[in-house]
Amino acid sequence: SDWDRWFMMGLIGGVVGAMGFLMHQIIDTVFELKWELVEKYIQHGDFLTTWLFILGIGFGMVMVSSGLVVFFCPSGSSSGLPEVIGYLNGASLRHIFNIRTFFGSFFSCALAVASGLFCGPEGPMIHVGAVVGCGLSQFKSDTLRIKLPCFTRFRNSADKRQFITAGAAAGIASVFRAPVGGLLFALEEVASFWDIKLAWQTFFCCLIASFTTEVLSSSFGGFEYQGYFGFLKAEQGITFWVKNLLDMSVLAFIPTIILGVIGGLLGALFVFLNVRINKVRIKLFSAVKRKWLRQISKLLETLLLLVVTMTVTVFVPYFFPCTEDPVTYQFLNSSEDSLGDHLPWDVSEYNCPPATTWIGPDGILNSNYTINQAAALLVKNGKQGIPLLFQRGNHEKFGFPALFTALVLYFGISCWTAGTAAATGLVVPMLYTGALFGRTVGLIMVYIFGVQNDEHWTWIDPGLFATIGAAAYFAGVSRLTISLTVIMVELTNDVQSIMLIMVAVMVGKTVGDYFNHSLFSSLLHLKCIPHLEAEPSVVHGKKKVNLELFAARDVMKKCKVIHLKENVFSLASILNDTTYNGFPVVYSPGPGQEEVFLGTITRLELCMLLSNRQIFQTPETSNIDTRVLKYQEVTVEKVPDEGQMKSLLTKYSADPQYQQLFINLEPYINKSAVAVQSHFSLHRTYVLFRTLGLRHLTVVDLQNRAVGMITRKDLISFQLEKVLIKLDSGKLDSDEELLK
Amino acid sequence: SDWDRWFMMGLIGGVVGAMGFLMHQIIDTVFELKWELVEKYIQHGDFLTTWLFILGIGFGMVMVSSGLVVFFCPSGSSSGLPEVIGYLNGASLRHIFNIRTFFGSFFSCALAVASGLFCGPEGPMIHVGAVVGCGLSQFKSDTLRIKLPCFTRFRNSADKRQFITAGAAAGIASVFRAPVGGLLFALEEVASFWDIKLAWQTFFCCLIASFTTEVLSSSFGGFEYQGYFGFLKAEQGITFWVKNLLDMSVLAFIPTIILGVIGGLLGALFVFLNVRINKVRIKLFSAVKRKWLRQISKLLETLLLLVVTMTVTVFVPYFFPCTEDPVTYQFLNSSEDSLGDHLPWDVSEYNCPPATTWIGPDGILNSNYTINQAAALLVKNGKQGIPLLFQRGNHEKFGFPALFTALVLYFGISCWTAGTAAATGLVVPMLYTGALFGRTVGLIMVYIFGVQNDEHWTWIDPGLFATIGAAAYFAGVSRLTISLTVIMVELTNDVQSIMLIMVAVMVGKTVGDYFNHSLFSSLLHLKCIPHLEAEPSVVHGKKKVNLELFAARDVMKKCKVIHLKENVFSLASILNDTTYNGFPVVYSPGPGQEEVFLGTITRLELCMLLSNRQIFQTPETSNIDTRVLKYQEVTVEKVPDEGQMKSLLTKYSADPQYQQLFINLEPYINKSAVAVQSHFSLHRTYVLFRTLGLRHLTVVDLQNRAVGMITRKDLISFQLEKVLIKLDSGKLDSDEELLK
Repeated sequence: SDWDRWFMMGLIGGVVGAMGFLMHQIIDTVFELKWELVEKYIQHGDFLTTWLFILGIGFGMVMVSSGLVVFFCPSGSSSGLPEVIGYLNGASLRHIFNIRTFFGSFFSCALAVASGLFCGPEGPMIHVGAVVGCGLSQFKSDTLRIKLPCFTRFRNSADKRQFITAGAAAGIASVFRAPVGGLLFALEEVASFWDIKLAWQTFFCCLIASFTTEVLSSSFGGFEYQGYFGFLKAEQGITFWVKNLLDMSVLAFIPTIILGVIGGLLGALFVFLNVRINKVRIKLFSAVKRKWLRQISKLLETLLLLVVTMTVTVFVPYFFPCTEDPVTYQFLNSSEDSLGDHLPWDVSEYNCPPATTWIGPDGILNSNYTINQAAALLVKNGKQGIPLLFQRGNHEKFGFPALFTALVLYFGISCWTAGTAAATGLVVPMLYTGALFGRTVGLIMVYIFGVQNDEHWTWIDPGLFATIGAAAYFAGVSRLTISLTVIMVELTNDVQSIMLIMVAVMVGKTVGDYFNHSLFSSLLHLKCIPHLEAEPSVVHGKKKVNLELFAARDVMKKCKVIHLKENVFSLASILNDTTYNGFPVVYSPGPGQEEVFLGTITRLELCMLLSNRQIFQTPETSNIDTRVLKYQEVTVEKVPDEGQMKSLLTKYSADPQYQQLFINLEPYINKSAVAVQSHFSLHRTYVLFRTLGLRHLTVVDLQNRAVGMITRKDLISFQLEKVLIKLDSGKLDSDEELLK
Repeated sequence: SDWDRWFMMGLIGGVVGAMGFLMHQIIDTVFELKWELVEKYIQHGDFLTTWLFILGIGFGMVMVSSGLVVFFCPSGSSSGLPEVIGYLNGASLRHIFNIRTFFGSFFSCALAVASGLFCGPEGPMIHVGAVVGCGLSQFKSDTLRIKLPCFTRFRNSADKRQFITAGAAAGIASVFRAPVGGLLFALEEVASFWDIKLAWQTFFCCLIASFTTEVLSSSFGGFEYQGYFGFLKAEQGITFWVKNLLDMSVLAFIPTIILGVIGGLLGALFVFLNVRINKVRIKLFSAVKRKWLRQISKLLETLLLLVVTMTVTVFVPYFFPCTEDPVTYQFLNSSEDSLGDHLPWDVSEYNCPPATTWIGPDGILNSNYTINQAAALLVKNGKQGIPLLFQRGNHEKFGFPALFTALVLYFGISCWTAGTAAATGLVVPMLYTGALFGRTVGLIMVYIFGVQNDEHWTWIDPGLFATIGAAAYFAGVSRLTISLTVIMVELTNDVQSIMLIMVAVMVGKTVGDYFNHSLFSSLLHLKCIPHLEAEPSVVHGKKKVNLELFAARDVMKKCKVIHLKENVFSLASILNDTTYNGFPVVYSPGPGQEEVFLGTITRLELCMLLSNRQIFQTPETSNIDTRVLKYQEVTVEKVPDEGQMKSLLTKYSADPQYQQLFINLEPYINKSAVAVQSHFSLHRTYVLFRTLGLRHLTVVDLQNRAVGMITRKDLISFQLEKVLIKLDSGKLDSDEELLK
């Protein structure tokens, strides 16, 4: 009976998968073309021309990428992930799911990554996935003025939210080809409400998304058909495939814990710096008064970032020598069966002399293949560079100078990049930075203990520590746990190291949590998105406040009540005078008895009722059955015409004749609205509100008379703290433990 | 500040991990010893002696195993998993977490598996893990009369439930060395309530459990120290390691879907048969009136099962010839570096002639190593047999006759075994049956398309289909999705086939759901455990009933109200006359006003109050401050002495002088108890009840007067159906779609 829901999930997955495929293709093609163009200049050491070329192309791309975000879809800015998280938590945010954002984010992200900025496609892909989930399931677009008459039953906020969750999960699943990881990411970080049914539909959606991306990728490379449609090679499917699994030793947990601690520290530092940079950015830009000037300066910042990034990318490798790398060359050579031929030029060769290969007198393959380590690390983008860092059995491929330089540059520049005016994702730069630092630690281990050939010590391999470092640092930034572990395993296919990864993730998160909140939650706070955590956490003087000591009445606001039979004049006045979105409806159960709380009605429903004159009753007709509006006529997502509505309200609230016209609200109110008594503990109120996903909660007294309302904004941590401080500082300081 | 919670989680993980290690060691040692003992008889074809030996040893083990469950800890019977699920859902079940059950389940399970019955250690290990979680966190044992004064803050039902969830997850994590899979299993199937904080603590617990098991296993084989402490070999860590990953083709999805459909059908059939068998079993045993006779007959049933299983195991291979198996021999040989030497005898060789190896004139290793296919499949237990079935690149290791025979026998006998009077798990037999059927389908593919050497067709490999079949069949039985996929990947390390596994799991579950409920939910129903699903599902005449059409008043029961100041006589009488566990407390807010609902109090709290005479007030002392009991004195888990309490209640309720003694309940009632109005929709009521994990919910009228109570039992599907049918069959038949 739920076939349409499943169909929709499949459809969303398919479309998101195709978008992910397109994203990868665009990035790969453009990136490769760009460097092929400057190949001969690099080889001849003409770095200035290289720089000019690369910068010129990059300028064009960043202009479009940043321009899209600045002028066309401001809500597509940066990763868009905090907005999606906030929306799914229940905050109402505008414009984040329209078709402009969809196209804007997608192309802005593709071009930003291809231009060579230190960013990745994940955040925007999650956003794009969420837009697909929202748009397809509603089968309408306000921007395009399309409204198709199918799947109408999904046009309610609960179902919409589910499809958005699924779409966001599909975005991650597609971009990493990690269906389980995508699902868990959505559940751990993105969604605030979910149940096992949604989990399992999302699972399907992720499956279809990964599948679509893989099948399409199987037959295309850089938009060229390759003739192997449907042949899924493990090399392509597993993004950062680690080929030789290592036997582990319990001793490996010691460096893992160290990596976890450093990763957590670095991650917390990243969060601190990034939030600081974003604050400065907001301050500076808001100082610019004129809108167009502000937009231009945002664009200029992104261009400046590009100049810095490209300068670093092109010129830094100049200071590094060419070093031998026999393992990679042999590997590439044998897999291509082209002994002696020249391999296609790779950017990591930079201006090193071309390699030749010969078979020595002992029958062993020799090669003088050299690479520029810094070029391999800086010029390649994250997707190409991470597998190099994860490579096992090639202990000394990268030396300290190259690793350390790349680490510092990546850390600093990616910190600046995140939050700039272009659709940029964070995950790949985070994994890259983490892998760089992990490999550095691994190399130190190799220097201390040497390259080990004993099977009990093979785990001392910088490639393994790069994987662990990536997990630890990303955990330090994002504070993800389960989903991060699964994503790392799906990315590397290294089930054997799962326990090391888990330990690194746990330690990284714990250390990071000691200093600050996760990046996403800091950004939510910075962007003033009202996000309710699962548990209330009000801190006063470095101590957690025990909300059991306070009652619902302490935070409630006075409210306007509406009578079950209300005249049009009063209704319009109330709507005009207040900005409340929900109203308690009261009525008197018997003559002379006090009015008690019966249910709630929303502003939107009242507006829809008021715009239908045929349901108005005069005192005379009140006993005659008047027309009752259908559910679909009252429950809409927004008022069709805001301006008209406003003038209607003004008209009704100005003319006393409307005091004689009544609406019987009985058929329209929500009689199953939860109410709490005013002495109800604040902690329980919070949990009730959050668990049931309410937007407003009526507070009643012992006789069930409505005395106040609590809304989402009243329950946000800093709001709570402000209100509670005024009440009683004694309770705030009391020790929570004593009361348990 | 939460260090004690983390410490406890780690402790639970460590202990469960050690238990898992012990379990594996016992099973492996006993199983191996048993077959070593009869080696020479088998080799000489003396099957009768073999049978007698094996049966004799098995008899002893099953006597103990079944005897433990029958006489010592009846609640350890069968897997114990439904009981844990029920308890975590909120049902109150007795004796499932005591120390008897712990030892009983553990040894019963170890011996049952070692005796050769077709069962595995997972279900009981989950149960054992849950008991560890409960016992350690409470730091007390009623059975042992131990109550230590540490970690007292965990002695409440919410925390206890969290530790039980973590322990159960650790059980799975330890037994499969699948930490993420264990966590997800607990979240998907075992726990009814959880949040991200619990998930992440459980994650830690699972990590420690897997780690402990792995580290201990690294240095012990059959209780002998091997001298490699802390060296974790991938071979040991990954339970059913698949070594050569295959490149996939999109065409592989076609047989995968077929496998999914058949797996779902077989799974549904298994559930149907198993429930039927269990019903017959319950009927037969309850027909035996005398307790000791009933116990003996349960024991006899298990022994009969053993006779059948052993007869099949020993004699069926007799009808199969010896067949070549060069791949395995070469593999074993090369890995042991012992060319030409004889390998230790393996049960799969049965009575085949011993193998010799020679290097041919072409320098290639030759061997005439032969095995008895049926012996390999039937004599080996699941843990040894599954890797053989999953083996890749050995297409024709097993022929149709052996596969099919083993499939039929395993399906039938494991269906009988599950539910018998011994602690037996289901997962391994399910995976085994599924792998057998998957390999059969794979072999059919090989017969049609031949053994393929083209890289685009290597996926036609019975080993791959065995993996997929195992997932499909297990999904058909258990209806697990996410956790099953992750467990399969953690078991096999085959990330490349994750999408095929996902598809098989989805199809298997969907097909199975068409026929019946999952095995666990069927068993919950069979055992009459009141389990509330996340969504209400009341079915009437094959149609889902829309609970929005009914109100809370339709299912509520009349209740006894208690006044805020109640006399001891009435309290005792109410407690004596009713069996209710929760009571609404009412009081009149002003003189002459009607009594309104204020909060609730539980039976246990009332009992504790009544047993403290010093808080009784006479009408004269009521205005003087009397002593108020502390939180810890009132909130206990059970009445210290039931008999004494009973006589106290009888005394109070018989003597009218207690009408003059009052208790002021004000300090003790739960003022934050949720109440719903009687017109509240039944659907919302259900969701509220289930989401907040309530045990009783007060129903009030518009003036906030308590009119009824709803308890867990009132909301169970069949109970709801019974009540609603009486009300109005019109509403029951109405089409749900129309109302959306």
